[in-house]
Amino acid sequence: MLPDQQFLRIPGPTPIPPSVQRAMNQPMIGHRDQETKELLHSISPKLKSVFGTNQNVLMLAGSGTAGLEAAVLNAVHPGDDVLVIVTGAFGDRFAQICTEHDIATHRYDVEWGEAVNPGSIEEYLKKHPHIKAVFATLCETSTGVLNPVKELARLIRQHSDTLFIVDGVSGVGGADVKMDEWGIDVLITGSQKAMMLPPGLTFAAVSERAWKVMEANTRPSFYFDLTKYRDQLENDATPFTPALSLLYGLKHVTELIEQEGLQEVFSRHRQMMNMIRAAFKAHDIPLLTSDEAASPTVTAMKPDDFDPDTLRKVLKNEFKLTVAGGQKHLKGHIFRIGHMGYCSQADILQTISMIEVGLRTIGKPVELGKGISAAQETILTGGS
Amino acid sequence: MLPDQQFLRIPGPTPIPPSVQRAMNQPMIGHRDQETKELLHSISPKLKSVFGTNQNVLMLAGSGTAGLEAAVLNAVHPGDDVLVIVTGAFGDRFAQICTEHDIATHRYDVEWGEAVNPGSIEEYLKKHPHIKAVFATLCETSTGVLNPVKELARLIRQHSDTLFIVDGVSGVGGADVKMDEWGIDVLITGSQKAMMLPPGLTFAAVSERAWKVMEANTRPSFYFDLTKYRDQLENDATPFTPALSLLYGLKHVTELIEQEGLQEVFSRHRQMMNMIRAAFKAHDIPLLTSDEAASPTVTAMKPDDFDPDTLRKVLKNEFKLTVAGGQKHLKGHIFRIGHMGYCSQADILQTISMIEVGLRTIGKPVELGKGISAAQETILTGGS
Repeated sequence: MLPDQQFLRIPGPTPIPPSVQRAMNQPMIGHRDQETKELLHSISPKLKSVFGTNQNVLMLAGSGTAGLEAAVLNAVHPGDDVLVIVTGAFGDRFAQICTEHDIATHRYDVEWGEAVNPGSIEEYLKKHPHIKAVFATLCETSTGVLNPVKELARLIRQHSDTLFIVDGVSGVGGADVKMDEWGIDVLITGSQKAMMLPPGLTFAAVSERAWKVMEANTRPSFYFDLTKYRDQLENDATPFTPALSLLYGLKHVTELIEQEGLQEVFSRHRQMMNMIRAAFKAHDIPLLTSDEAASPTVTAMKPDDFDPDTLRKVLKNEFKLTVAGGQKHLKGHIFRIGHMGYCSQADILQTISMIEVGLRTIGKPVELGKGISAAQETILTGGS
Repeated sequence: MLPDQQFLRIPGPTPIPPSVQRAMNQPMIGHRDQETKELLHSISPKLKSVFGTNQNVLMLAGSGTAGLEAAVLNAVHPGDDVLVIVTGAFGDRFAQICTEHDIATHRYDVEWGEAVNPGSIEEYLKKHPHIKAVFATLCETSTGVLNPVKELARLIRQHSDTLFIVDGVSGVGGADVKMDEWGIDVLITGSQKAMMLPPGLTFAAVSERAWKVMEANTRPSFYFDLTKYRDQLENDATPFTPALSLLYGLKHVTELIEQEGLQEVFSRHRQMMNMIRAAFKAHDIPLLTSDEAASPTVTAMKPDDFDPDTLRKVLKNEFKLTVAGGQKHLKGHIFRIGHMGYCSQADILQTISMIEVGLRTIGKPVELGKGISAAQETILTGGS
């Protein structure tokens, strides 16, 4: 095995583009100096287009979970009832955050591997008109499901003034999302997924409607008070010390996205998803999600005749290829490939080639090259 | 196309391991300071094993060609006749250097794509006993031929006191070479091939026998005077300012080689060669060299039904995959894949996958996955 080579194909953290690594490699500057203001000023407009919003996108030093908790703390008034749509481990985390803060939390649980049916949420809200906020996951990292957030937003908006709060952590930057046009009230993501950065930065964008709710909120919160971030960002500043090297990297990431073109970025992610799905279908290895519910950033396989964790071990030992296992009750039953951010069609061809060798190594008599050729056909026919 | 991603599969320069990039990224030090002495002192013993010699391996700031010229200038006395074995563009370069310095140069030309037959050199030397030095190429980068240097050394040594001088530029570090045991008198290489470094450093190791010839040489030479490098290196120093960042990187490279194990490094290179050869054989795309003459570091294909340069253009445009074309009269007739240094079996699977897609794109109706599966089989059967 070649030292110093590894293939990270988990759904985050994801590989960092070399030029982003270089961009982060800069001397520290004063976080109240003009250089920091200029850095924030140059990033801000470019982030808006990734989020599909005219709102400023707030940046907090913290993991994605910090962003989720900030959304809860700011958007939910004491005494409010909320609905959390749980389609996997990260929906479950949103619910945990709410219950931790003694919020009256209604769960709408969906079988893991399936997307939520928007009609059923509409029904639920009709029966429970006092719900003040609905929490959903754009891409459920634990299952590779892309929830129908656009349709959810439309239905929620049509029938109530309930806030719609979306965890976009493994979606934003890889999956198309139009916050303003669709009617999302709060959209959160993290730096270490499709945003091609190390972990440590979380992003939140907030609608005008949600700002009104947040401004009136009496729930105590200091570091997570999003109005502070909003007010400071209007002057190209942050309320607390920002993660400066990540901001250097972020500036370069937004330039890379602009260079490739945002629609091209989304199309590349869809093509990688189609390549992986075609490859495993060719090998009759079941996919956890249907084509309709599939995320462009994460794909989960649920094999019925081999142990996914044995395969993962072989891939790690033979090739230093890391793919993810299952979480919670899916542990030991699925394996997941992350294909977002700094990941190309060529990387997917390589990943599938290694997995085919790994499958043979663990004794599954797959026909070598069969999955690859299905993925190659996807490129040639332009499937995205 | 993903910005900031490229696949460099030419026979040098080759990709740099990320940890080597980091190792080079150090502040400058004084080239006469203790730190530089310690750097040279730590590198020296590890280089010896890569060259298969007990001699100190000299390091000059310069390209591989600088090393070749230094060998000529030091080893050939004014008035000497030399024999240059030319099996491709780099054998030809050795001959050019000799004629540039008005050396009586005998050429032994071999059809490009074939290895030299050692018996014919033995015959030649019997007929021309006044030849003082034989120049040969270990791996002929322009054709992917590995010449039988061990057998050449044995025959030359058996029949004369002629010096045997070997250009190891795209071989050393990827192909097994035992300078002392085989009886090579001068072995040269460069930093940018199997040594996993940027260009800018050339290496030369010299046998006791060759040192005697060099010491007695009256040919004028200043920067290229190898005895200066030898004498200084005995005190962990260099006669002229060394390429310090490359030395930082080199120290780390020798550690990476030690970590993988030298025999493992050679075996990885042979397996990559076998994978590529199996893949193109599966597609009936002719290889330029026979299996017997094949180099573990470079492979050339000579297609008979498509234009290799059209394929190269498509690979570059579609995937940012760079493979090399032909040189001199092979230009437009072959394409070459470099598979040395920081390159793994997984990288070869990826390269072949992309080439299959490229072949279909230029209209050659290859069966997708066929070459890949042949390469995958090579891994599974452990072919190295």
